[in-house]
Amino acid sequence: MKMIDSGVREVTYGKNVRVIMPVNLYECELHDDVFIGPFVEIQKGCVIGRGSRVQSHTFICENVSLGANCFIGHNVSFANDLFRAGGPDPDPAGWIRICLGDNVTVGSGATILTDSICSGAVIGAGSVVVKPVTRKGIYAGNPARLIRPL
Amino acid sequence: MKMIDSGVREVTYGKNVRVIMPVNLYECELHDDVFIGPFVEIQKGCVIGRGSRVQSHTFICENVSLGANCFIGHNVSFANDLFRAGGPDPDPAGWIRICLGDNVTVGSGATILTDSICSGAVIGAGSVVVKPVTRKGIYAGNPARLIRPL
Amino acid sequence: MKMIDSGVREVTYGKNVRVIMPVNLYECELHDDVFIGPFVEIQKGCVIGRGSRVQSHTFICENVSLGANCFIGHNVSFANDLFRAGGPDPDPAGWIRICLGDNVTVGSGATILTDSICSGAVIGAGSVVVKPVTRKGIYAGNPARLIRPL
Repeated sequence: MKMIDSGVREVTYGKNVRVIMPVNLYECELHDDVFIGPFVEIQKGCVIGRGSRVQSHTFICENVSLGANCFIGHNVSFANDLFRAGGPDPDPAGWIRICLGDNVTVGSGATILTDSICSGAVIGAGSVVVKPVTRKGIYAGNPARLIRPL
Repeated sequence: MKMIDSGVREVTYGKNVRVIMPVNLYECELHDDVFIGPFVEIQKGCVIGRGSRVQSHTFICENVSLGANCFIGHNVSFANDLFRAGGPDPDPAGWIRICLGDNVTVGSGATILTDSICSGAVIGAGSVVVKPVTRKGIYAGNPARLIRPL
Repeated sequence: MKMIDSGVREVTYGKNVRVIMPVNLYECELHDDVFIGPFVEIQKGCVIGRGSRVQSHTFICENVSLGANCFIGHNVSFANDLFRAGGPDPDPAGWIRICLGDNVTVGSGATILTDSICSGAVIGAGSVVVKPVTRKGIYAGNPARLIRPL
């Protein structure tokens, strides 16, 4: 059995970045004033914008981009492979790229399965987001629906 | 980048408390015979009552109080900031305090977004609890509803 | 307080098994070419079939058996104690045994509460599976329903 240590590998980072160990971060960018809680995994190609916070136990898959001052709660999952062909797609070219705007809030335990969430949107805890969010508002449920415009 | 170790910091504890490392526990109370699984975070101001068990990967936010002999499953999230103003509330005075009675059972993957769950209640795995639970019974779904009184 | 290290204890394993630390694995079997991500717990009596992948933050309870080439996403929870008597059952004889076939795909954030999922089935991210899956297809929602046969 090959036991490989998790950790921080090939990460580009700005000023005043704080990370609570242990984490598994690799080949991603953390801009100024980012906070990463413990037990977080962030995969390659991700960009975490200035002042954003990623709380404990959250998983951010490849090619996710967060704008500035986002708040990602605890136990949140992002997924870029939507299993459209009936299983994991071995070709990354078939995966979506997920882009969140600025000041996006994602509640704990939510699952993000869409390619875009607009600036200022709020995703309730425990929600499953399966469609793009293009209008500022509070969204909740499985599947997530607009509960209240902002 | 500042890497800060997780661990056990300023925790008050009783007899026969067992903790599986790594965890991130700070400024909280663990009463006699408590068990905490690996990859758990418990934040400041929390009280975990006598004989309660908190399983792996669970996140317990500030100011949560569990009674005696509760069972909290794996991958459970508690949230005290309900984003009522359309985003994270920087003022802790606006956050709810969450109080569970004795012998409460919370299934794995559930999300707790309410201020009280009465003694003896059972929350099904994967449920999202958005309203106070005041009657002993089994609750499940998103949002969680009473499935069967006990 | 007794702090006990997580790790790899009494695990039987085949060739070319890779594990990203830290994990908590005990008294289970990992067959050839298995991959286990960081922050995973796998309990006793589990069998992870040849070529299967278990991604970060996932919890696999006692007596779960995965076939060959399964893909289990991130933040997935399996539960074998269905709290039928209104709380945790102290007697393991009352717990279900969970058996997944070959080439089963489980999306991130899903919760598995049933005893069988047939070969080739796909469970969408964030779903809660409460009934046996006996027909190959894509299932999603809480509770999970057949979305599309395969």
